[in-house]
Amino acid sequence: MRTIRVELGERSYPIHIGSGLLKNIGAYCQEAGFALRSPLLVVSDSTVAPLYLPQVEEALRSQGYQVVTHIFPAGEASKSLAVYEDVMTTAIQGGLDRHSAILALGGGVVGDLAGYVAATYMRGIGFMQIPTTILAHDSSVGGKVAVNHPLAKNMIGAFYQPAMVVYDLDTLLTLPPRQVSSGLAEAIKHGLITDEVFAYWCREHAEELLALDLEALGYALELGCSIKAKVVGNDERENGLRAVLNLGHTIGHAIEAVGGYGVFLHGEAIAIGMAGSALLAAKLGRDRAIYEETVSMLTALSLPIRLPEQYSEDDLMEAMKHDKKFKEGKMTFIIPEAIGSVSIVNDIDEQLVREVLAQLKKEDNPW
Amino acid sequence: MRTIRVELGERSYPIHIGSGLLKNIGAYCQEAGFALRSPLLVVSDSTVAPLYLPQVEEALRSQGYQVVTHIFPAGEASKSLAVYEDVMTTAIQGGLDRHSAILALGGGVVGDLAGYVAATYMRGIGFMQIPTTILAHDSSVGGKVAVNHPLAKNMIGAFYQPAMVVYDLDTLLTLPPRQVSSGLAEAIKHGLITDEVFAYWCREHAEELLALDLEALGYALELGCSIKAKVVGNDERENGLRAVLNLGHTIGHAIEAVGGYGVFLHGEAIAIGMAGSALLAAKLGRDRAIYEETVSMLTALSLPIRLPEQYSEDDLMEAMKHDKKFKEGKMTFIIPEAIGSVSIVNDIDEQLVREVLAQLKKEDNPW
Ligand SMILES: NC(=O)c1ccc[n+]([C@@H]2O[C@H](COP(=O)([O-])OP(=O)(O)OC[C@H]3O[C@@H](n4cnc5c(N)ncnc54)[C@H](O)[C@@H]3O)[C@@H](O)[C@H]2O)c1
Ligand SMILES: NC(=O)c1ccc[n+]([C@@H]2O[C@H](COP(=O)([O-])OP(=O)(O)OC[C@H]3O[C@@H](n4cnc5c(N)ncnc54)[C@H](O)[C@@H]3O)[C@@H](O)[C@H]2O)c1
Ligand SMILES: [Zn+2]
Ligand SMILES: [Zn+2]
Repeated sequence: MRTIRVELGERSYPIHIGSGLLKNIGAYCQEAGFALRSPLLVVSDSTVAPLYLPQVEEALRSQGYQVVTHIFPAGEASKSLAVYEDVMTTAIQGGLDRHSAILALGGGVVGDLAGYVAATYMRGIGFMQIPTTILAHDSSVGGKVAVNHPLAKNMIGAFYQPAMVVYDLDTLLTLPPRQVSSGLAEAIKHGLITDEVFAYWCREHAEELLALDLEALGYALELGCSIKAKVVGNDERENGLRAVLNLGHTIGHAIEAVGGYGVFLHGEAIAIGMAGSALLAAKLGRDRAIYEETVSMLTALSLPIRLPEQYSEDDLMEAMKHDKKFKEGKMTFIIPEAIGSVSIVNDIDEQLVREVLAQLKKEDNPW
Repeated sequence: MRTIRVELGERSYPIHIGSGLLKNIGAYCQEAGFALRSPLLVVSDSTVAPLYLPQVEEALRSQGYQVVTHIFPAGEASKSLAVYEDVMTTAIQGGLDRHSAILALGGGVVGDLAGYVAATYMRGIGFMQIPTTILAHDSSVGGKVAVNHPLAKNMIGAFYQPAMVVYDLDTLLTLPPRQVSSGLAEAIKHGLITDEVFAYWCREHAEELLALDLEALGYALELGCSIKAKVVGNDERENGLRAVLNLGHTIGHAIEAVGGYGVFLHGEAIAIGMAGSALLAAKLGRDRAIYEETVSMLTALSLPIRLPEQYSEDDLMEAMKHDKKFKEGKMTFIIPEAIGSVSIVNDIDEQLVREVLAQLKKEDNPW
């Protein structure tokens, strides 16, 4: 088992990564300090619950915990205020008190939603993440929890740190291939922003990663979590530095908003966004090789790099204006300076972004 | 003008109390550090907005701010997730960004709701309270923001401090008499828990207070805010000490929940609750004079001290079980030890509370 510590002063917490951890989840809850006398609420979705909830419930009960569960329909559409209210209702009816904790068993949707409930039920109770997707290595570090508003993604939320993250690699074996690639998009993003060696490692080991080799996955998740933890540790509330994590996200979020959540998976959308950022970098005078390398890495991981024709520039620009990266009338982008290094550029001209979007649609060569 | 500083480290903020402050609200927003380039959202209710919103908008615009407004129907029923979502929609459509701030113009309902939006819009933006009720002297200090769940009051929320509180006493002149008394219930509560002299001062000056003498009101609000600020400063996230502020609230919240929000005003409900706590104290062996004095103070402020017959003990007990003061199967009450001094008693027997509820219904003498 690998353990990473996210250093955030009194809100520091460990991430345990390894095989066969689910069966010890009761012991982890004890280690996290969750009271035995107060009910725990396990939140999961309709795909993950049949696969892993019985094990988790069993492990918690045998440790002496009372368990309440809430299962909602799988998919981004559930990351809504309506489901948030439903989970709140379950928590109240299940008798959760201030010493209770909420366990998020699932991917980023479960983590973000359950985390937002934990952050705001009785103004905040205990919280544990049990990620079951590769993408959730990203969402389980950093303390961002949220639901979507019909007009904009992740618009409603809080910063709220879990007491612990328990990452059982065995759960990843049931992930569909597109979800695997989508999750790896955030892993390679962590390489692209701060760690050239890791980014190239991902390309070299793309086959093992896509084949769910647990050794390779464990390493990629450890690196991905560590890099994110380091960035977040320096800027818990996203006042500056942490913005580098948004590489590919301004365009990516717009793609998700315009296409409708779920047409492209999150990682697929940000892959296109990362290709777009590299194009933007080239337009701003950075080396074209950054774009070529980025695209080859993404392609190796079976990720898309082209924007489909039907996404209109107008719609995408409009969506970006609702995005949090649009500050006081100017656009902010994370721009790659090299593989493994980025900078935050404010004041980016709207017209340049439009051009990039148009070029991203070109099938073979965007130049 | 009186200024109190709530000391909470980097989250410290000033409370300005005085006459004629609304017309300078633009300057206060500057002092609070709100960016001129990002729209401000003023949230108010259907009673307060016609009275004071025009002045506030005018003052903000003349300072150079863009202003978006959201007005919801007055009353506790609006402290809901549905209205929360509506305000979020206005904020997004109005183009609020991370440098924007939300101004709560109104009583505790506006403050709690708008504060919860500010705490969670884009994971937290600027927030200012402009209280227009006496009761809001309480809700504007302490950083508790929340909405109600149909099953329990204030169940969904956060701790979130305003950047500033601007308390214009002139706005209190339009308050209906019951609202005046209700607000004074929280003021005298602050005396009852920590300041004997202030509690007796309230009884002596009850007539001036009820007649909205601004000198007396200014003093009462200054003392009320200061006492609460001191308690909160020692326990920002309600880990222990701060619980003393809940004097009268366990029973009070149950009365509100059972009667339906709005039958009794919040201050009226907690007045009955404070009478109940004093009765409970007597049952636990404390001096009966505490009860007699408490009741005389509440009566002087035109507050109720009797529970109407139709409130069944079963319903009230059931409501308390959903309350946050019910921890791991035991009841916790704040018990007066003397006028101006309380203690936190866990492990209170359910049966004793039932007896108190029954006695609270006796018209003349509860003994
Ligand atoms: N909080 C953050 O910092 C942060 C960071 C990145 C992404 N996110 C959010 O995360 C979400 C995307 O995360 P995600 O891709 O994990 O989404 P997800 O939770 O919807 O999971 C994707 C799909 O895979 C299924 N699934 C999950 N685990 C499985 C397993 N082990 N086997 C089989 N199927 C499984 C789910 O049911 C779902 O259908 C988005 O809402 C995004 O905004 C948040
Ligand atoms: N956050 C906290 O720490 C805290 C503390 C105490 C109470 N509260 C909450 O505060 C709420 C009660 O506060 P409230 O009594 O101020 O309620 P409120 O905001 O509903 O105001 C009471 C009524 O007075 C009207 N009103 C407000 N200002 C007026 C004015 N100047 N002139 C004429 N009418 C006016 C309102 O429209 C409303 O109808 C409850 O929801 C309670 O839970 C919160
Ligand atoms: Zn992402
Ligand atoms: Zn109160």
